[in-house]
Amino acid sequence: MRVPKPMSTPPLPSTTSNVPLMDRWFDDFAVGEVFEFGDYVVGADEIVEFARRYDPQPFHLDEQAARASHFGGLVASGWMTCAVLMRLLCDHFIPRASSMGSPGVDEVRWLEPVRPGDQLRVRTEVLECRASRSKPDRGVLQCRHQLLNQHGRVVASIVGMGMYRRRPG
Amino acid sequence: MRVPKPMSTPPLPSTTSNVPLMDRWFDDFAVGEVFEFGDYVVGADEIVEFARRYDPQPFHLDEQAARASHFGGLVASGWMTCAVLMRLLCDHFIPRASSMGSPGVDEVRWLEPVRPGDQLRVRTEVLECRASRSKPDRGVLQCRHQLLNQHGRVVASIVGMGMYRRRPG
Repeated sequence: MRVPKPMSTPPLPSTTSNVPLMDRWFDDFAVGEVFEFGDYVVGADEIVEFARRYDPQPFHLDEQAARASHFGGLVASGWMTCAVLMRLLCDHFIPRASSMGSPGVDEVRWLEPVRPGDQLRVRTEVLECRASRSKPDRGVLQCRHQLLNQHGRVVASIVGMGMYRRRPG
Repeated sequence: MRVPKPMSTPPLPSTTSNVPLMDRWFDDFAVGEVFEFGDYVVGADEIVEFARRYDPQPFHLDEQAARASHFGGLVASGWMTCAVLMRLLCDHFIPRASSMGSPGVDEVRWLEPVRPGDQLRVRTEVLECRASRSKPDRGVLQCRHQLLNQHGRVVASIVGMGMYRRRPG
């Protein structure tokens, strides 16, 4: 049996910077840094509510119908899983002052079902830091964000691009 | 000025099959087919509600804060935009009997802001139909799904993979 990692641990110490994640500018990140953060428990009501509005497939909508499906029980919409990941990024990773949004993400993968009661956290690795040539006030950060459950298994993964302002002055 | 295409038109006739989209099996799709469908009006309340739960950044949360941001007004979370796209796929594209879910999507791009009142529809192009070698009962469809607004502009785009059952018998 795999021993789950403790939840709600503070971000791992940065390999290059002591600046807290939420106070960072583009210049504070370095390739290879890894952070873990967040603690989100998925509710059955939340799964059904999201599905009714955005993804009304039987295995997201109704426990009984889901039991008859190849999932064998209620599972969250993959888009809800991405939304939960975004919430954890907002709460723990994306700096308010320097973030300028995202042009997109790549390699969205739904690897394991997310079920009611699952306790999720994020592991983020910085893949690339690319200062803009045309706009000297900003840069693009490429990160792999993995969502892990209480068993330490990666349930979803995305490679995100984020635009960040450079440290002023 | 670009003339918007009419909304709520029925799916374009398939180039290879007369089977309605929602009744299809893997075998009914062909590379190069293009479909347009859906009609979804985005509400300001919906934008704020989604943001409070999943993406609490100022330009998604509050009209006044959004006006002060580089967006100049309230805009939908990119993940909400993906969720709206999923809703239109569920209502018009994903066959209930043959769909087996999705392992993931690539090239998620948020190209233009989505604002309150925007009227969205989907344009889908079939990029690849790959029958499974190991599991003869299914295949993977790769499609580019674009979300267009009332001005005919592509506001978001994803390349999705979908697993579909082959026609029985």
